[in-house]
Amino acid sequence: MWHQRELCLRARPRGFHLVTREIVDGLPELGTLRVGLAHLHILHTSASLTLNENASPDVRDDFAAWFDRAVPEDAPYWTHTVEGPDDMPAHIKASLLGPSLTLPVRDGRLALGTWQGVYLCEHREHGGARSLLATLSGEG
Amino acid sequence: MWHQRELCLRARPRGFHLVTREIVDGLPELGTLRVGLAHLHILHTSASLTLNENASPDVRDDFAAWFDRAVPEDAPYWTHTVEGPDDMPAHIKASLLGPSLTLPVRDGRLALGTWQGVYLCEHREHGGARSLLATLSGEG
Amino acid sequence: MWHQRELCLRARPRGFHLVTREIVDGLPELGTLRVGLAHLHILHTSASLTLNENASPDVRDDFAAWFDRAVPEDAPYWTHTVEGPDDMPAHIKASLLGPSLTLPVRDGRLALGTWQGVYLCEHREHGGARSLLATLSGEG
Repeated sequence: MWHQRELCLRARPRGFHLVTREIVDGLPELGTLRVGLAHLHILHTSASLTLNENASPDVRDDFAAWFDRAVPEDAPYWTHTVEGPDDMPAHIKASLLGPSLTLPVRDGRLALGTWQGVYLCEHREHGGARSLLATLSGEG
Repeated sequence: MWHQRELCLRARPRGFHLVTREIVDGLPELGTLRVGLAHLHILHTSASLTLNENASPDVRDDFAAWFDRAVPEDAPYWTHTVEGPDDMPAHIKASLLGPSLTLPVRDGRLALGTWQGVYLCEHREHGGARSLLATLSGEG
Repeated sequence: MWHQRELCLRARPRGFHLVTREIVDGLPELGTLRVGLAHLHILHTSASLTLNENASPDVRDDFAAWFDRAVPEDAPYWTHTVEGPDDMPAHIKASLLGPSLTLPVRDGRLALGTWQGVYLCEHREHGGARSLLATLSGEG
């Protein structure tokens, strides 16, 4: 059983945002799968998806703090600077975290750990809305 | 053909641990797949899975050395500190390495490179046992 | 519908290389899938795959610049040094970027964003040719 659907995540400020509920609500076909996988793929190169702690907003703030220091905007070695100081660091961060998540599905729901939630990682100042392509496979 | 099974990895000290054998032994259904994929998903936000060199223990020690320096415990910018100094770095490391691996299966076995092995990356001092949800798909 | 095929990418210099076209040309079975997933897995521990900006070569140069600084060759904490100064950093970079990509397929083609391309990330000075195992699944 295969389903594919494009989801649009509304524009968010630069930072890390919990979007589990928004994604699940956009994938009604999840409910038809007894066992399977949900592949979520972001169609951009300066935003990413990751899975992490779904409870404390300060965890997401600390993600931003660490990534902004690890991949600095003002590094002297950047050569691709035409799209602004946040562009090249956004590309690096996007690859460090990755463009997609593959999540297990069981009994019609994402089978995540208690504390796991999906983050939209917005690495641009003005990234705009972000498109995901979701591909579900499994058996009913 | 779909199979899903939860595996429990016993508690290990903070660091990087080779667990390929333990995982394969826990997945007897692998043997039924002629071609397919094995999705291994860790149900935690402060441990992760990665694939790397399966021969030299000093490679795994050097992983710990690099990650501990790249994501320091005593950084002044951490705000989520209630669960101890190793907690927030563990979350960052978990997302850098990722919560899951998708591995090819061929002729009933993981089809890995000669030097590839699965690492359990334990980022907490006292992380305890870790649960994986394995989802196998393919054709027999 | 499952297909599995090994691809060989010719030896490239250390750095980040756009290989989307080469991979697609090596996977004629993509054309038979109406909806599905393409799993690309590199069978090595010192090279990796990532997805990023497919237009400007200077983005790929800046990837090399950042990764070479983030994972330095001359760090005093490396203990696995027998295979040369580029070896241990190559292992770390390989895990930061990951050994595989899972990409959505739609109407017989990789369903990527406009600016997304597949990078072969060659972390060794003399890595040689690199083998990929591609696993395609989906429905026709």
